[in-house]
Amino acid sequence: MTAEIISVGTELLLGNIVNTNAQYLSRELADLGISVLRQSTIGDNPARLEQWVTEAKTRADLLVFTGGLGPTADDLTKETVAACYGDTLHFDAQEWDKITAFFTRIHREATPNNRKQAMVPTKGHKIVNQYGTAPGAWFVDGDRQAILMPGVPREMKAMWEESVRPVLAQKQEQTLVSTTLRVFGGESWIETTVGSLLDHENPTAAIYCKPGECEIRITARAADRPTGEQMCRDFAKKFYEVLGPAIYDADVPGPAWTVVRLLREKGLTLAAAESCTGGLLAEQITQVPGASEVFGFGYVTYWEQAKAKMIGVNPDVIAQYNVVSAPVAAQMALGAKRTAGADIGVGITGIAGPGGGDAQRPVGTVFVALAMGDCVWTRHLTLVSNTRQDVRLRAVVCVLDMIRCAASGLEVPGTVWTPEQVDNPTLKPVHE
Amino acid sequence: MTAEIISVGTELLLGNIVNTNAQYLSRELADLGISVLRQSTIGDNPARLEQWVTEAKTRADLLVFTGGLGPTADDLTKETVAACYGDTLHFDAQEWDKITAFFTRIHREATPNNRKQAMVPTKGHKIVNQYGTAPGAWFVDGDRQAILMPGVPREMKAMWEESVRPVLAQKQEQTLVSTTLRVFGGESWIETTVGSLLDHENPTAAIYCKPGECEIRITARAADRPTGEQMCRDFAKKFYEVLGPAIYDADVPGPAWTVVRLLREKGLTLAAAESCTGGLLAEQITQVPGASEVFGFGYVTYWEQAKAKMIGVNPDVIAQYNVVSAPVAAQMALGAKRTAGADIGVGITGIAGPGGGDAQRPVGTVFVALAMGDCVWTRHLTLVSNTRQDVRLRAVVCVLDMIRCAASGLEVPGTVWTPEQVDNPTLKPVHE
Repeated sequence: MTAEIISVGTELLLGNIVNTNAQYLSRELADLGISVLRQSTIGDNPARLEQWVTEAKTRADLLVFTGGLGPTADDLTKETVAACYGDTLHFDAQEWDKITAFFTRIHREATPNNRKQAMVPTKGHKIVNQYGTAPGAWFVDGDRQAILMPGVPREMKAMWEESVRPVLAQKQEQTLVSTTLRVFGGESWIETTVGSLLDHENPTAAIYCKPGECEIRITARAADRPTGEQMCRDFAKKFYEVLGPAIYDADVPGPAWTVVRLLREKGLTLAAAESCTGGLLAEQITQVPGASEVFGFGYVTYWEQAKAKMIGVNPDVIAQYNVVSAPVAAQMALGAKRTAGADIGVGITGIAGPGGGDAQRPVGTVFVALAMGDCVWTRHLTLVSNTRQDVRLRAVVCVLDMIRCAASGLEVPGTVWTPEQVDNPTLKPVHE
Repeated sequence: MTAEIISVGTELLLGNIVNTNAQYLSRELADLGISVLRQSTIGDNPARLEQWVTEAKTRADLLVFTGGLGPTADDLTKETVAACYGDTLHFDAQEWDKITAFFTRIHREATPNNRKQAMVPTKGHKIVNQYGTAPGAWFVDGDRQAILMPGVPREMKAMWEESVRPVLAQKQEQTLVSTTLRVFGGESWIETTVGSLLDHENPTAAIYCKPGECEIRITARAADRPTGEQMCRDFAKKFYEVLGPAIYDADVPGPAWTVVRLLREKGLTLAAAESCTGGLLAEQITQVPGASEVFGFGYVTYWEQAKAKMIGVNPDVIAQYNVVSAPVAAQMALGAKRTAGADIGVGITGIAGPGGGDAQRPVGTVFVALAMGDCVWTRHLTLVSNTRQDVRLRAVVCVLDMIRCAASGLEVPGTVWTPEQVDNPTLKPVHE
C-alpha cells in the first residue's frame, strides 16, 4: 500500500508552526509497511485543496490528512475531502453532546463555531477524538481511502493509536520492522566507520545527526514481525562489531533514557550541578518516567554565590582559575555528590553565548565533570555551534555519556582527579 | 514571486527526523513577500526527484531546497537539480580547502566522501557554508531559480541569513510584515473573543495554540516595511482592546523572554523550586540571553528530603497535606525566595504522569505558588493532557504567567497567603 501525508493549514505555509505530525505519521506508516511517497503541506484554500486531493488520490491508495478540523471558519478540509471521495456530511448529535461535555469538563462553554465539528461522514465513518472537540473522518471510495485527523499533535496521536493504526494493521500482510541504534559521535566519522553497511538492500540503514549524537535507523521488510525483528537484530550486530561502545543504546528516545535505566539497574543515585545549562540536564533526566528512583537533587547554580552557597564551591578557586574552568567543574560535581549524598555527582560550567566569550574562552567553551567513588573526571569541551541552546544540548549529551560510562563500568573520558586534588587544585590531576 | 519549499531526504519520509527547516523558511519567505504555495518532502530517489523538480519548476518562480547535500552516497540532489536547470557541476579547490580546514578545526579528518561536497555550479554559483562542510548551490534558468541549502538546521539558517535572504530581499518590492501577539488562554475562547477580527483581509490574523498559550499572527501586505509595520500596529490595537492583559507580549519566542525582560526592567530577582517540572522552568528562563541578571538560584527538589534540605520545606506539612498540595507548593516558593535571598520565589509540585495519579490527585494535578513581598499565591491546576512533557510545559507556562503578573503589577491569579500562614498552614489563607 502507498500513502501520502497531507498537512493542511495556512499557519504551516506561513511558518507559524513546526509540522511534527508528518514525522510521527511517516514513522508509523513505515512500521505498517505502507510506503510514504510524499509529504505535502498546503493552505486552507478550498479550491487549491480540492485540486491537490484529486491529484493525490490518483497517486496513492491512502491519503492521511492532519489539520483543518478545528472550530475556525477557514477549516474546510472535511467538506472538501468528502466531496472528492463522493461523500457528504451530516450532524451527529452524539458528537455534539461529547463536545459540550468536553467543554464542561475543562470549565469552558462550547462556542457556536464548535458546532460544525459535529458534522460526520455519511458513507464513511467518524473517528472518535478522546482529547479534543474535533472528531476525525474516514472516507472510502472503492480501493481509495482518506483519513482525516486533527492538527493538534496529542489529539492526532491518540486518535491514530486508538482508532486508525489497528484497522490499517489488519489490512497489511507484509510488515516493515525498524530498530534505531543511538551513537555518540559525528555523521562523517560514523559513515566512514560503518562504510558499505549503509548500501545494504534489506534491511536498509540510514544515519541522522543530532546535537552530539547520531541515529542509525535499520529497517527490514519481512512477511511477519518476528522475522523482521530477527533480520534487524542480525544486521544491528554488524554495526555493534564496528562501532562498539559508541552505540549507547537502541530504540530509546534519547541518552537520558539510557542513563536512567543504567542507574536503576546498578542502584546508583545521581545529583547534578548546572551553570550554563541552567537545569537542562535535570530536565532531560526527569523527562524519563521513573527518574525519581535515581535522581533527587538538582542544583542550578547560575551565579557564583549560588555555586558557593548551594554546593560549597570555593570562591578562591573561582577567583584563581575562572568560573569557567576544570577545577570549578570538578568542585561542582564533587559538591553536588557530597551535598546530595548521591553516588554520582556531575558539574557543568561554560559559555553558551551569544555573549560572554573571549579569545581565551570563546562561546562554546564548556567544562564538565563527573564525581564517583574516589575519582573525579573533567573534560574541556569546545562546542562549534551558532546557537545558545545547541551548545547547552551538546554539553548535556557529553555529560550523559560520561554518566553512562561511569554507571556501566566503561572508561570515563577525561582527566582524572582525586577528591583531594579537587578540594585543593594546586595539586595536579593524576593524568593531565 | 511564488515559491515552493522542497525538503529532500528518505530520513524525512521514514519519519526519522522532524522537518523544522520548512517552518523556518516559510516564515522567512513570507516576510520577504514571497508566497509559499506548497511545502513538499520527497525521498533521495533521483528519478522521482527529477520528475518532481520539473513539475515544481513550472509552478513556482523559486524552488528552495534543503537536504541532500551531505557527504553520504545517496545525496544526489545537487546533481539532479543542476540538470533540471541546465547547469553542470565542477570541482572547487577553494571549497575543498575549506572542507579539509574545517575538519582540522574540529580535530577530525576529511573523508573521501566529503570530496563530492566540493562540487559547485558552473553557470550558477555556490553558496558559502560557514558552519559545515557542504556548500550550497544557486541555479538560474531564465526567470526560474533554485536554491539548494544543507539539511542541518544551523548550517541552513546561517547560509540563509548571510547569503540568500539579502539577495532575495533586493529583488522584492512589495513586503509582507508580520507581528505575533502571544496570549495566555485557549483557542476557542480567544476565537470567540476576537470574533470577526480573524476574517480581516489585510492585515490578516491567524491563531495557533501551544501548551497553555496561543499565538495570534498578524500579517500585513504593504509597499514598504514602515507602512506594513504601521498597519500591523494599528490592527494589533484592536486585539489588545478585546483581549487586554491576556496578551502577554508580542514578537517574543515565548513567555520566558517576557518574564526575563520584565524582571530586568523592574530590577527583580527570581528563584525557582521545582519538583514535577524537574528543572524545566529554570531551563526555560536560562534559555533567554541575559537571564543571569535576574536568575541565580534554581532548586530541583525532586525528592521530599531535597525539599526539606535545600529550601526548608517542613516534612510535617508534607505528611499532613501530601507532597502534592497547596501548602507544600507555598513552602517551596517561600523557601526558594528566602534561601536564595531573591525578590520572587516560585514553587511547583504535581503529578506529571504517566504513573503516580489516583482518584484524589489524577495525573495532571499540579500546585504552583509564587512568593513576593508579604504575599504568597497558590494555584491548583488540573491539566488535561496525555503526555508527561505536556503537563510539565503547561505547569511552567502557568508559573511564568504568575511571575509576569507579579512583576508587572497585575493581579496575580490564585489564593493569597501570608508568610505566617505558609509557615503554619493550620491558619487559613486570606481568600480561600
